[in-house]
Amino acid sequence: MIILGLDPGLGTTGWGVIRAEGNRLSHVANGRLKTATAEPLARRLAHLDTMLAAVIADHAPQAAAVEEVFVNSNAQSTLKLGQARGVVLLGVARVGIDPGEYAATLVKKAVVGTGGAEKAQVHAMVSILLPGVKIDGPDAADALAVAICHAHHLASARALR
Amino acid sequence: MIILGLDPGLGTTGWGVIRAEGNRLSHVANGRLKTATAEPLARRLAHLDTMLAAVIADHAPQAAAVEEVFVNSNAQSTLKLGQARGVVLLGVARVGIDPGEYAATLVKKAVVGTGGAEKAQVHAMVSILLPGVKIDGPDAADALAVAICHAHHLASARALR
Repeated sequence: MIILGLDPGLGTTGWGVIRAEGNRLSHVANGRLKTATAEPLARRLAHLDTMLAAVIADHAPQAAAVEEVFVNSNAQSTLKLGQARGVVLLGVARVGIDPGEYAATLVKKAVVGTGGAEKAQVHAMVSILLPGVKIDGPDAADALAVAICHAHHLASARALR
Repeated sequence: MIILGLDPGLGTTGWGVIRAEGNRLSHVANGRLKTATAEPLARRLAHLDTMLAAVIADHAPQAAAVEEVFVNSNAQSTLKLGQARGVVLLGVARVGIDPGEYAATLVKKAVVGTGGAEKAQVHAMVSILLPGVKIDGPDAADALAVAICHAHHLASARALR
């Protein structure tokens, strides 16, 4: 099964694709979708949508998961992030996938073993879990971690059946 | 010129289409795009996207404007609204329109004359400005008000040139 993980953001959305065969995970691809701060908001969202559609067309994932955004006290940041997240969820839903949604702490727990792990630890563990991976920065590392978390979740759900 | 106004929301997005000829405005259509609370978030966003695309295809607007969302202290509400707003902005940008964005107070000022106007006053003034209109509830009234505000803004911009 091909699983797409996404860490949404208006400026940078991280993405990571893994293959899960039983309990064996392997890396497929990862990267960053960047939009220019100078562009009007609606165009940035349209650009994000086009780039995400290309990633989905390239890798044809059967499952996807999106990190739950960190809702902070800055309402303007939350709104910005929400707008990007809406576009990302839509991109996944449009190809018929019901995305999994995981809080950052849960993702860290699934990958590192503790919800309070540092970004560097997540990056290091993703490199160990997906041998040979070259990670395109912290957002892509987070996206791969989300994909791994979803793979675990799907495997547990299968085991329970 | 056909102008589409939008008042985004995850549960209900109001929309209104008007025609602006010089300073003369007339009503074309208005309504509500509703998504079911019981559906998963990503499907609700996909449903909203499909319904908005149908409105745009039906009325072929040349311009559009979206109300700036009211960012409140409830971060979860802001996030929800942001996700819906992202999808709405994307729907407009996808057909090549750079949407205008107006704060609710500015919209009220353009329509009623004061930024602190009540919803009922906005509704009443929209009915006067667009004779014969039958308004499909408060969200559609707000959307028509946004379209009127954008029409005024475009007319002023033309007058300045």
